Amino acid sequence: MPMKLVIGNKNYSSWSMRPWVLAKGLGIPFEEVKLRFDFNAGSPFYQALAKHTPAGKVPVLVEDDGFAVWDTLAITEYLAERHPEAGVWPADARQRARARSLCAEMHSGFGQLRSLCPMNIEAALQAKGAELLASEPGLGKDLARISELLQGALAASRGPFLFGTFCAADAFYAPVAMRIRSYGLPVPPVVGAYLDRLASAPGVREWITDALAEHDFIADDEPYRTAPA
Amino acid sequence: MPMKLVIGNKNYSSWSMRPWVLAKGLGIPFEEVKLRFDFNAGSPFYQALAKHTPAGKVPVLVEDDGFAVWDTLAITEYLAERHPEAGVWPADARQRARARSLCAEMHSGFGQLRSLCPMNIEAALQAKGAELLASEPGLGKDLARISELLQGALAASRGPFLFGTFCAADAFYAPVAMRIRSYGLPVPPVVGAYLDRLASAPGVREWITDALAEHDFIADDEPYRTAPA
Ligand SMILES: N[C@@H](CCC(=O)N[C@@H](CS)C(=O)NCC(=O)O)C(=O)O
Ligand SMILES: N[C@@H](CCC(=O)N[C@@H](CS)C(=O)NCC(=O)O)C(=O)O
Repeated sequence: MPMKLVIGNKNYSSWSMRPWVLAKGLGIPFEEVKLRFDFNAGSPFYQALAKHTPAGKVPVLVEDDGFAVWDTLAITEYLAERHPEAGVWPADARQRARARSLCAEMHSGFGQLRSLCPMNIEAALQAKGAELLASEPGLGKDLARISELLQGALAASRGPFLFGTFCAADAFYAPVAMRIRSYGLPVPPVVGAYLDRLASAPGVREWITDALAEHDFIADDEPYRTAPA
Repeated sequence: MPMKLVIGNKNYSSWSMRPWVLAKGLGIPFEEVKLRFDFNAGSPFYQALAKHTPAGKVPVLVEDDGFAVWDTLAITEYLAERHPEAGVWPADARQRARARSLCAEMHSGFGQLRSLCPMNIEAALQAKGAELLASEPGLGKDLARISELLQGALAASRGPFLFGTFCAADAFYAPVAMRIRSYGLPVPPVVGAYLDRLASAPGVREWITDALAEHDFIADDEPYRTAPA
């Protein structure tokens, strides 16, 4: 039996998206276990999740015997170790270090983009995005740094993705691509072109298709809409 | 020449503390470059930092030729790759995965502990800690989860530290030990005993000594004091 990857709603769960599109994009087999979000204490979501992980968050990777690896970055390193041939990280040591810097910077940073523009793949929030950008200087700052780091990596890359072929760094920025699209946030053309390539990469495209088919509405993840599209 | 590790004030910089105590504790040679905090735009701090890293944050590891690795987790993986014999991560694959889960959970989590109780090694903020604990339920929640995860790791450990001997997981929780001490936050005895061992581990003890010798006062990092001790 392949490992399980326990995830949340595909329309909303930006953390779940990262290891899912990574494994899918690189052909690493896994069984998906999707838990519908419900952030009320003691909800079916938390009850089901508690069976897999003590950390109480998705995603979590679960082996056949119940051994659990939680948190996106730890899952990513675990996939890299278990599938050394898959190309989770660039083969070159310095490129690998750089890719990890970009992932870790994403993992703990860009707080304004993350809290003001929660991922919502199906939503059209372009007017809200323009409004936020005008009123929240921190959002513009996050966006500028993201554009800068993506441009830097793309300029040095020898392929269509950040470090040549699709790897963990691309997977970590896939939810960013979704946010930039849903909220219509402006980026330089070379970054926009990369984000388009990323959105149509194998794995990413599949996730988007699934997200659009969900037609769910989780109020806690919807600061800006009152009803689904 | 050994690599450089660019850090901030030792009394305050919880992120800088992690790779510094890790490298020091494991005997990995490096040259320390300390930049005094000053969070005003264009300050000497940001000017000096910009020479090393585009991410604008400490810590950053810099090789002889200027190659930079930023963000604590990326630096940690880089040290592990460059010094495979040093024991940055546990030797066992599953223990290694677990150690990474704990580090990554710390890296992006415990927001309440981190924002309400900023690291301040020299400060005695026990009264403030009790007050915060009474008024901020999220702080108690963070503390409970931290106690739970440390207890789990200690119960399975075959040595004095989280995974036997001192490794990256201990380094990541060293600033937590400092906070729990400065703010007098309550933890179960087994956790308290571990945090004491951690505070006197080589590397950690040295960092604390240096922090106490600093006698600096950075207002931005001092929500609760108006003057140094
Ligand atoms: N740093 C974690 C973050 C995971 C996370 O925050 N997941 C959210 C959904 S996207 C969650 O499960 N939230 C439930 C909760 O916080 O109670 C990771 O990388 O896995
Ligand atoms: N996730 C980063 C966080 C680094 C960080 O926030 N460093 C603080 C000091 S402890 C800093 O340099 N702040 C300057 C700023 O944010 O402008 C890491 O792990 O290195």
